[in-house]
Amino acid sequence: MNNISEKFAKLGVGSAPGQEALQQTGSVELRGARLEGVPVDFSHGDVNAFPPIPGSLETFTDGFHCGADQAYTPYRGKRSIRAGLARKLAEFTGAPIDPEREIILTPGTQGALFLAMGANIGSGDKVAIVEPDYFANRKLVEFFDAELVPVQMDYFGAGKGSGLDLTALEDSFRNGVSLFLFSNPNNPTGVVYSRFEITAIANLAEKYGVNVIADELYARQIFEDHAYTHLRGLGLMDPDKLLTIIGPSKTESLSGFRLGVAFGSAAMIERMEKLQAIVSLRAAGYSQAVFANWFSEPGGWMAERVAMHQAIRDDIYNVLRAAEGFRVRLPEGGSYLFPKMPEIAVSLHDFCKALRLHAGVTVTPGTEFGPQFSGSFRINFSQQHQAAVAAILRTVEMVRRYRV
Amino acid sequence: MNNISEKFAKLGVGSAPGQEALQQTGSVELRGARLEGVPVDFSHGDVNAFPPIPGSLETFTDGFHCGADQAYTPYRGKRSIRAGLARKLAEFTGAPIDPEREIILTPGTQGALFLAMGANIGSGDKVAIVEPDYFANRKLVEFFDAELVPVQMDYFGAGKGSGLDLTALEDSFRNGVSLFLFSNPNNPTGVVYSRFEITAIANLAEKYGVNVIADELYARQIFEDHAYTHLRGLGLMDPDKLLTIIGPSKTESLSGFRLGVAFGSAAMIERMEKLQAIVSLRAAGYSQAVFANWFSEPGGWMAERVAMHQAIRDDIYNVLRAAEGFRVRLPEGGSYLFPKMPEIAVSLHDFCKALRLHAGVTVTPGTEFGPQFSGSFRINFSQQHQAAVAAILRTVEMVRRYRV
Repeated sequence: MNNISEKFAKLGVGSAPGQEALQQTGSVELRGARLEGVPVDFSHGDVNAFPPIPGSLETFTDGFHCGADQAYTPYRGKRSIRAGLARKLAEFTGAPIDPEREIILTPGTQGALFLAMGANIGSGDKVAIVEPDYFANRKLVEFFDAELVPVQMDYFGAGKGSGLDLTALEDSFRNGVSLFLFSNPNNPTGVVYSRFEITAIANLAEKYGVNVIADELYARQIFEDHAYTHLRGLGLMDPDKLLTIIGPSKTESLSGFRLGVAFGSAAMIERMEKLQAIVSLRAAGYSQAVFANWFSEPGGWMAERVAMHQAIRDDIYNVLRAAEGFRVRLPEGGSYLFPKMPEIAVSLHDFCKALRLHAGVTVTPGTEFGPQFSGSFRINFSQQHQAAVAAILRTVEMVRRYRV
Repeated sequence: MNNISEKFAKLGVGSAPGQEALQQTGSVELRGARLEGVPVDFSHGDVNAFPPIPGSLETFTDGFHCGADQAYTPYRGKRSIRAGLARKLAEFTGAPIDPEREIILTPGTQGALFLAMGANIGSGDKVAIVEPDYFANRKLVEFFDAELVPVQMDYFGAGKGSGLDLTALEDSFRNGVSLFLFSNPNNPTGVVYSRFEITAIANLAEKYGVNVIADELYARQIFEDHAYTHLRGLGLMDPDKLLTIIGPSKTESLSGFRLGVAFGSAAMIERMEKLQAIVSLRAAGYSQAVFANWFSEPGGWMAERVAMHQAIRDDIYNVLRAAEGFRVRLPEGGSYLFPKMPEIAVSLHDFCKALRLHAGVTVTPGTEFGPQFSGSFRINFSQQHQAAVAAILRTVEMVRRYRV
């Protein structure tokens, strides 16, 4: 069992979003007076500030009253719900989806990601992962004993698009990568890949026969009509080598129901269903009913929600851009900002703890997204607007106190 | 990716409960006239016949209205819910539980089982598995590339207890097994392990330093006050090497919420939480609220539910015992019966398909529980009483038609 202990020692969750209360805090140096204000947990969105899609609870209740048919669905999800989603998601992404073979409902987008990774990689397989990208991507590669091949993204670069190093991506494909996983909009930076970049990814995947998982969790929250390109909608790569993941946990605030979807490659989805059978059987049956509200929100509701997020983004971005020594890129989509701080005199983890204990502000350390991001942190700005801006002002003050 | 395809080819779900609609049915020989009657799906319980604990939907609704605190709990589950369950489950099992370190809430009992196995075994580890026992146990061993060491249970034997081969169990421990996983009451036979057997398991685990996972999913549904011994309550083995699993999906019919619990070893639970962080984050937040109803059912509700199951068990058992060529053991707990049929002229899988197509009766083939059970099938008798008895009568008639 020693191997297991070692393996899990690497899979830390103490700095993962929502887990901060597990941290040891005894030795952290707290500088200056305590900064008072409404505590803000930027590690995830606040569903009190942005409540679930109207009618979600009612749809859940209807599902509960359906009884056995809803409680015990096939492992890949209830047939009628898959049919409805296949239609909506095909329209959204610009390519058809067979509801019988090409879609699976999962316990959250995290569930989709786990099943997708488990259904594609094993010991020693090489997986290309963008840096920075969603922290669980890295942990999944480790858990399945695969080999992480990092590909850098110069998100501060002046060019159009994400700044993904396409040459390094091709090198990784040439050197035996079997799977490429990336989020678009990128988590944690909020950058949206350009059509040129998505086209290049498709062409490279096709050229080298690489499987691709596109995590489009935030694809419905794009600001200022920035162009968004669905990889599967381009039709440039073998659809049996491409899986797309999305879910209603973020912009739509349905996280408490744990719902996600994966669609595309029928071969991958068949393996994912087999894995789901031993992981958790199915997405909670009654919760599955709530998918009916998704992509069927009341008229104007999504547009207003995106506009409200854009307003918060703008205010926080302006505070950070004006703060001495900070660098930050304006997100084109999603609810994350990933600022780089000026150099500080304590470790990133100690700073994040001090920020939480002394200023009531919880952020996610940049090192969760790649070891080199030791001067950055991530915030989810889906929060009560004024409290979030005030918390960022406190954060800037705390950075000032800890600067070298 | 060839290794992955091979690995998943072994993880079939076509004969798993609830997945029967995926089967190819073209070539099955249908003998005699169609047997009409209310279709019964014995692959899982019927929550229409036995609805969820009263008040569950209302508690869920309260949880939903709690908002962010309920939607985003720590990965191991909401603190106040863990505290309440730790108290109830300590009383139920006869040994204390630290709510901070020794309990984790999971997406169903299946979720608990997956996390427990993933947190304990890796490539090449030897795992002792009872035959017959819950089919997913076998698949989990395969998925984690561990080695299955079968231990036979002579459940038709005349002795007291389950008939587990304790000599073979000790041999397996002596030969390097690192983990023993078993269900009590046993799935699929419904046998309850005797106090002597549970004591022997504890002593052997202690002697050889083996980790144990006790799946007690049906421990609240014991018939005729048959004695039930909680392994952890004996206090005979290192509590850090023992994990107990239970959940409200069966007797209490809360499966549609996907709720389970694992408790015991703090070291295992710490690893399970790390795994849960990348598998599905947490049991659905709003669903977690429904745990409040569990072990707090209205007075007399559980006793009546168990009595109703006992009545169905008795009627079905009497039909099967009287049927020519059948062998069946009376279950002491749980909702399963595992009859052995007389020899039939077609394969077990073809018979099960014919039974479903021609008599409207769905059962789970015995081979899901071990390759040697090719003459047995499992039924979950948590069904509408009269429909279930009628379906078993049709099953007996179908067996008569296919006998050698």
